[in-house]
This record gives sequence, structure tokens and C-alpha cells, in this order.
Amino acid sequence: MAFAAGATTEKTARNRSADDSLARLVGDDLAAVNTAILARMDSPVALIPQLAGHIIAAGGKRLRPMLTLASARLCGYQGQRHIPLAACVEFIHTATLLHDDVVDDSGLRRGLATANAVWGNKASVLVGDFLFSRAFQLMVEDGSLKILKILSDASAVIAEGEVQQLMTANDTSTDEATYLDVIRSKTAALFAAACQVGAVVAERPEAEEEALRRFGLNFGMAFQLIDDVLDYNADQGKLGKAVGDDFRDGKVTLPVVLAFARGDEGERGFWRRCIEEQDQNDADLEKALALMQRHGALADAMERARSYGRAALETLDTFAESAVKAALAETLEQSLRRIS
Amino acid sequence: MAFAAGATTEKTARNRSADDSLARLVGDDLAAVNTAILARMDSPVALIPQLAGHIIAAGGKRLRPMLTLASARLCGYQGQRHIPLAACVEFIHTATLLHDDVVDDSGLRRGLATANAVWGNKASVLVGDFLFSRAFQLMVEDGSLKILKILSDASAVIAEGEVQQLMTANDTSTDEATYLDVIRSKTAALFAAACQVGAVVAERPEAEEEALRRFGLNFGMAFQLIDDVLDYNADQGKLGKAVGDDFRDGKVTLPVVLAFARGDEGERGFWRRCIEEQDQNDADLEKALALMQRHGALADAMERARSYGRAALETLDTFAESAVKAALAETLEQSLRRIS
Repeated sequence: MAFAAGATTEKTARNRSADDSLARLVGDDLAAVNTAILARMDSPVALIPQLAGHIIAAGGKRLRPMLTLASARLCGYQGQRHIPLAACVEFIHTATLLHDDVVDDSGLRRGLATANAVWGNKASVLVGDFLFSRAFQLMVEDGSLKILKILSDASAVIAEGEVQQLMTANDTSTDEATYLDVIRSKTAALFAAACQVGAVVAERPEAEEEALRRFGLNFGMAFQLIDDVLDYNADQGKLGKAVGDDFRDGKVTLPVVLAFARGDEGERGFWRRCIEEQDQNDADLEKALALMQRHGALADAMERARSYGRAALETLDTFAESAVKAALAETLEQSLRRIS
Repeated sequence: MAFAAGATTEKTARNRSADDSLARLVGDDLAAVNTAILARMDSPVALIPQLAGHIIAAGGKRLRPMLTLASARLCGYQGQRHIPLAACVEFIHTATLLHDDVVDDSGLRRGLATANAVWGNKASVLVGDFLFSRAFQLMVEDGSLKILKILSDASAVIAEGEVQQLMTANDTSTDEATYLDVIRSKTAALFAAACQVGAVVAERPEAEEEALRRFGLNFGMAFQLIDDVLDYNADQGKLGKAVGDDFRDGKVTLPVVLAFARGDEGERGFWRRCIEEQDQNDADLEKALALMQRHGALADAMERARSYGRAALETLDTFAESAVKAALAETLEQSLRRIS
């Protein structure tokens, strides 16, 4: 739409090289994770691998499982437990996506039709349940109660965050603290768990485990803030989602929270009509973007993202310099460049 | 509707005394389970206890957690681990109900409006996810990898059964073996796990654990068969669901499988129109009932239920006579009397 045009080609090139850096370092592990995912999403019930394959095998950057792999390597782990556990993190993430599709009624996910649009709500919910159960089976096979605790706690927090998000949908009175609570639960909790699990398999001291947990948590906060900014400020082809989706769905993300808080009564009326009453016309998205720009809502949301990004980077100080550490930092910085 | 009228009052009286027998024996434990359920379904996200309370606290017979409690007592268990584990079984069951509501679009559940009808698909799915996660948190607190395995395996099988049921919906070519597979997965697997967990906490020999697992499995098969027969043959007020719900939804349960298999081409055309094309008029349910009666479809489905019931009772031979054993047998027989 507006803003981000222009620098796209250069940014895409930079992103690719950054993606490559971490992906190359954990490449063999990631291939093993993909093999594990394909093997373990199988079922005699044909619709399960079919639907799960649509959302899992078709793509996605495997960011969360890569965090598990990279965290384990950063801690010097030499074994193989991180492979099925990374698959398990991806299964939990995919189950959430499938259930979120039911929730969001979104027409696009990663540029493909959502599983929900193709197979319906029912199948998406039930296959999500299967993947979620499969994740716990994988953890049981691994046999660490500590990891079972980390990921069952994260799963409960994710569900709480999703419900809280549902309660704040279409509610313009949502404040920044509530918004941050929601994204901490629905997104950052799994990033944190994914990283922590890597330290746990490596049996590292509490301080390193905690540093990686906080790296993931802050990365996850930045990641969701970036995603929410890009919904008002992106090149659709690259993002695989339409600009303005959140606006049309009446989602109250930080750009809306800030623009509403800083707006006068007339502007608040506009937001209430568009977001609460879902009464929108063709010109409203442009107007929303103009109001956000007037109040620096997007710029400030980006600054929040960068702030969480800096906090994440600082936690890496716990670890000695290494290629994996540099690649983790680069992956985070690459995310942040999407809004630069 | 037709059939079951007449003996209702007497049956209700018998049911009550049978319910009482097991409920009285495990009464203190069941009260502790209810306390645990209320405590652990809580969340700072208000909609979660609200919606979960609607479906959990409002009622249900707590049959599955009672099976865990009774199995533990049958094995002479004297500790307290069976309490949170029984709550955990109920959470898994409730999550399934919530997700099944999305699936079935059913208007009545236990005589109340479904959570889905009141709060919508989205909230039902997400609160189900929360309860499911909570169940795993409870298992992690218990700390037995064996129990985590039993219940994560059961959860995956349940999801497979639900997806398979979705695939057979509206499909009149579904055969009896496929139907039995579906109910074994979606219903009997959790009955089996609920009973087995009772033996595991009591640390009983493999033979007793296996006997209780098979008791639950066969009870679960009988239970679902009974439920599916009653959908064509029940007193609505007592069952809390309308006669003919499955028919209107195009579910292919055993009475339909048998009537279709035994019908001539004209009758198969009727079933295809009603079940596959979902093209039904007011007289069709009566006609369906008449065809089932002509071919002995309900009578034979009831006989299958009794056969699983007998198999369940036989597994109890492993255990010495006791009040709990008698009450377990009576609970099963009471279920079977609903179709007598």
C-alpha cells in the first residue's frame, strides 16, 4: 500500500542472506527436523497428513524450531534430542495456527489459502488437536519432565493469550499494557520456551537457560510487534498477507491502541465505527493509515519492537562469541529490518 | 418419540440408585475432584472459567473421572494422586466436547445451550485448548511419564477418531468396521485410559492394569453404541438431546450402517437423500425409524452394546469381590438398561 515501497528489492536480498546464515549453520539439523515432522504428522486417517501437510510441509520459515536448534548449539549441545523437540515446538505452533485460522477467519496464510478455507473449521480444529497431542507424545518419548513442564506451561499461556485477544477484539478501550500481555502470551511464550528447551537438553547452568528464555521472550515480543506494524505497512507479496487485514478484522493492535489514545473525539469516533462496529468503507484504511502517521503510532510501535530487540540482543552477552551467536543476532536484526 | 416410552419412570428410578452406588463409594474423592476442577480451570482471563464453568461445573455425570477413582480404589490405592489425575481426565473430555461442539453444530448438550451457541466457535476452541494444556500441566505435576504416555497417546487417538468421524459423516458407504474404529478412538480410548491410570497410581501388576484398560475400552464401546441407539430411541428430557439429532446431522452411526446395508435399492436411495444430500422433510425421521425397525438395526446395535458390556464385565473377574467392583459392574449395567 503506502509506506514501505521502494527499498523492497534491497531488503529482500538482505533478508535472504540473513535467513541463510542461521539456516546454513543448523542446516543438517533442520533437515532432520523436517524429516521428523513428516514422519510424525502421519496417521492412518488420511485427512490428517493431508491437512497438516498443507500448513506444515508447504513452508513457513521454521523460525521457532530453528531457535531450539540454534539454542542447543549455542550451548554446545552435541546430542540429538533437540531434533524431535524442535519438531514438537513446530507442532504446537502449527496447532495454534490451525486454531487461529478458525478464530481469525483470515483468507490468506503464508500466501496460500488457509486450511480452514479449504477443509472447513471442523477439520482444522481436530487436526490441530492431533498435532498438539503428537507434540506431547514426542515430549514423552524424550522423557524430560522439565521440558514437559516448559512446553505445557507455554501451551496453557498461549491459550490464555488467544482467549484474551478474542476478548480485546473490536474493543478500542484496550490499552497498551493489555496489548503487550496478549502478545507476550500468544506469541512470545512459545519463542521463550523454544529457546529454553535448547539450553535444557544441553544441561547448561540456570543462568544460560534463563538468558536463552529471555532472548526468546524478547525476540517474540519484537516479532509480534513487527508483524502487527507490517499489517499496516507491508508489501503484500512478500508478507503473504494483505495490508489492512487486522484493520478489517477489527483487531486492536498497538498501532490502533496508540492512534486511538492520541486521537481527538472525532478520531475516536472513526476508530469506534471501524473497529467496534466493523462499519468500514473503501477509504477507511487510507484514513486509518493517515491518522496513525499523524500521531506517530506506527513509528512508536516500531520503536517498541526495536526496544524488545535490543533487550533480546543483550541477553546474548551471557554467551561467548560464536558463529551461532552471530547468526541468532542476525536473524533477530533481520526481523527488525523488515520495519526499517 | 416412538419406542422407549412407558418404562421411563421405572428406569429413571433404577438409574438413580445405580448412579448413587458408585458415586456414594467414591463420594469424598469425587468432591475432591470437583474442588480440583474448579481450582484448576481458573485463569486471570475471565472468559476461561466462565465458559469452562458452563460446561464443566454445570453438570455431567463425571463418569470418566469416576472410572479413574473407582479403578484406583479397586486396586487398593490409598494415596491422593488419583484426584488431580481424575480432574485431568475430565479436562481432556471437556476439551473434546468443546471442540466437538464446533464440529457438530449441535444445539443441545446436557440439556443446556452449548458453549459454542453462547460464546461462538472461537471461544470454544480456545478454551478447549486451555483445558487440554491444563490437563498436561496436571500430569506434569503428578510426575509419572507412564501416565503422560497413556493420556497423550489417548489424546492423539481421540483426535484421529474425531477426524475419521468427520470423514465418514454423510457417507452411507461407511461399514460397521469403520464405525467401530471411530467409536473405539473417539470414545473408548479415553474410558480405557481413565481406568488404566487408576491401576498405574496403585502400582498394580501388569495383568490388573491391562484388565482395567480392557474394562474401560469395552465399557466405552458399549457406552457410545448406547448413545448412538438412544439418538433414535430416547426420552429427550432424560437424555438432554433431541431424538433424531444424528439423523438430521447426517451422522452415520451403527443403526444407519445396518439399515443401509440391509435395505433394498429404494431404501438406499432414501438414506442417500437424507444422510448424504441432507435433503430431509418432516416425515423422514419416522420413516428412518420404521426402516431400522424392519431390519432389526436398533435391536442389533443394542446387542452389540450388550456384547461389549459382557466383555467389560468379564475383565473384572481379575479382581476379588468388593463393594467397588460391584458398583463398577452396576454402573455399566445401568448404562445398558437405558436401551433395555
